[in-house]
Amino acid sequence: MQQARVGVVGLGLIGGSLLAALQSAAGPADPGPLGWDSDARVRAAAAEAGLELAGGADELASACSVVVVAVPPHAAVATVLAALRASPSAVVTDVTSVKRTVLDGVSAAAAPAEQARFVGGHPLCGDDRGGISSAREDLFAGATWALCPGWAALESVCAVSALVELVGARALIAEAAEHDRAVAWSSHLPHLLAGMLAAPGSGTHGDRELVAALSGGSLRDGTRVAGADPSLWLDILHANADSLRAALELAAGCLNELAAALERGEWGVLEGALRDGMEGRQRIARVRWSAARWEPAEVPLELWRETLLGLGHSGRAVRGLAIEDGRLRYQRAAADAT
Amino acid sequence: MQQARVGVVGLGLIGGSLLAALQSAAGPADPGPLGWDSDARVRAAAAEAGLELAGGADELASACSVVVVAVPPHAAVATVLAALRASPSAVVTDVTSVKRTVLDGVSAAAAPAEQARFVGGHPLCGDDRGGISSAREDLFAGATWALCPGWAALESVCAVSALVELVGARALIAEAAEHDRAVAWSSHLPHLLAGMLAAPGSGTHGDRELVAALSGGSLRDGTRVAGADPSLWLDILHANADSLRAALELAAGCLNELAAALERGEWGVLEGALRDGMEGRQRIARVRWSAARWEPAEVPLELWRETLLGLGHSGRAVRGLAIEDGRLRYQRAAADAT
Repeated sequence: MQQARVGVVGLGLIGGSLLAALQSAAGPADPGPLGWDSDARVRAAAAEAGLELAGGADELASACSVVVVAVPPHAAVATVLAALRASPSAVVTDVTSVKRTVLDGVSAAAAPAEQARFVGGHPLCGDDRGGISSAREDLFAGATWALCPGWAALESVCAVSALVELVGARALIAEAAEHDRAVAWSSHLPHLLAGMLAAPGSGTHGDRELVAALSGGSLRDGTRVAGADPSLWLDILHANADSLRAALELAAGCLNELAAALERGEWGVLEGALRDGMEGRQRIARVRWSAARWEPAEVPLELWRETLLGLGHSGRAVRGLAIEDGRLRYQRAAADAT
Repeated sequence: MQQARVGVVGLGLIGGSLLAALQSAAGPADPGPLGWDSDARVRAAAAEAGLELAGGADELASACSVVVVAVPPHAAVATVLAALRASPSAVVTDVTSVKRTVLDGVSAAAAPAEQARFVGGHPLCGDDRGGISSAREDLFAGATWALCPGWAALESVCAVSALVELVGARALIAEAAEHDRAVAWSSHLPHLLAGMLAAPGSGTHGDRELVAALSGGSLRDGTRVAGADPSLWLDILHANADSLRAALELAAGCLNELAAALERGEWGVLEGALRDGMEGRQRIARVRWSAARWEPAEVPLELWRETLLGLGHSGRAVRGLAIEDGRLRYQRAAADAT
């Protein structure tokens, strides 16, 4: 089966890596992927790297059956809407790390037939360094790639899911709001904690240089992501403010409970926290950083949405989505590994 | 100059690695280091690994001019006191991650002449896995090794400092209380944060499996240390309860401030936190994870303590400590790198 032609708008770290990965995965009979970026210098760097470019974003949308919008968060909705309007049939997806604002923005401005062609997306990968100069075609290998259907048709979800698999990632179908709550804890909170650890807010803990000198692997690893671009992150945090605030308050409550347990000498509370942490770490490694075990499944078409969202709710990825004989056939990650 | 003979009591990850590193560093004319462990199985594993053992802890102390006590935190004081009493001249140091309780314990029970031979120590290195089976002779390469003189004589500090350099670590002289406050932030707090991130305390942030599945590098790196042994860590947290409580309360306050800023839409506060974090990360990398630039210095003997503690306060390591012509000559890390 010939692959769908994919276009990528926005060639930063994610978009540039995706275009390179797609070009690498394309067979000799496949139409190669097309890229576009509004910045002429980025286009020049992409061409220099051997990537094929369209003549503009609208031309790209007309030429492709799947369009990936990989622009900064604040520009995502407008770029998605432009792509939907530039083509009567292209499926459009984005890569923004927060999903509810994008889906709401698209829903508010797009006609129902356009909404059926839009699938929200978020590949969970990245790097402290951004830009096309950091792009690499193996960026998505083994990564979870969240897909939020919103009002999308199943056919649109299948098309984007195939793209996700093509570059080696694992599709996980989730409600936008649930996705945003989860990444508030799994990504945005760790980012703020890394910054806080790297820059203690007061002199209470001695000279900052002494704290830095007396650090081992836990501070090195726990502060790594604090090195990322503050502007991009401010954009992300802004878009997920409500969920992030809840995560921050929950975390502050946890820390205050531990402080109170220390004051009262309740060592069982501390020991429980340490043991929970060790088990949680094992769960993360099992669910996220190990190979999936897949099992085949199928479901009547009318149940596709609740079935796939249910799997996503419990952290299970899906692959091989195909509509056959009035049913959705697919594979799901076994419950003991995603 | 012939090296001092060093003995290591307690052959877990730190002690076993140290014995291996010392054996590897010994010249042909040097007396080889000696080890001892109260557990016969550990002694057998050490002998199997080619390490030389003494006939007992007292015999070891009698045969060595420097004794390193590398036993679990709760056994440190008694083992240090036993070593001081088993030899009239050996300099004794320990590797416990919290320093005030050990120094207080030794001070309370040792005579002044014995206290002059004890230097508290803490090598900032380790691994999620402990035990002699994880030992490796390069464990200390580039690590900061804190030394807390307490009531020690300068000669004792010089002897332990030479040992630290011999295995590739950087000595940093610090007050015990200041050390404990700093590691509460640089090590103990990150450990509890890692556990909290790995095991969110409530269902507010969705299914734990979904949080795990929707994780990227920040959760992976931010939870790594949560995999370490809870029993050892409970011991460490117990010994540093006061400083850790202050660190937890400070951290909870930071998170609550960020949550309040989110609620009020004060994006400048968030942006400031992100920028402070990025700068802090750069400071940590500069002070801790890059090569030091050394400059020679000297000081009259009577000023050694305040001079070395002052350098440690600002995170600067020292090396080559030597008493010559009534002065302490040494090298200090330049102020822009430790």
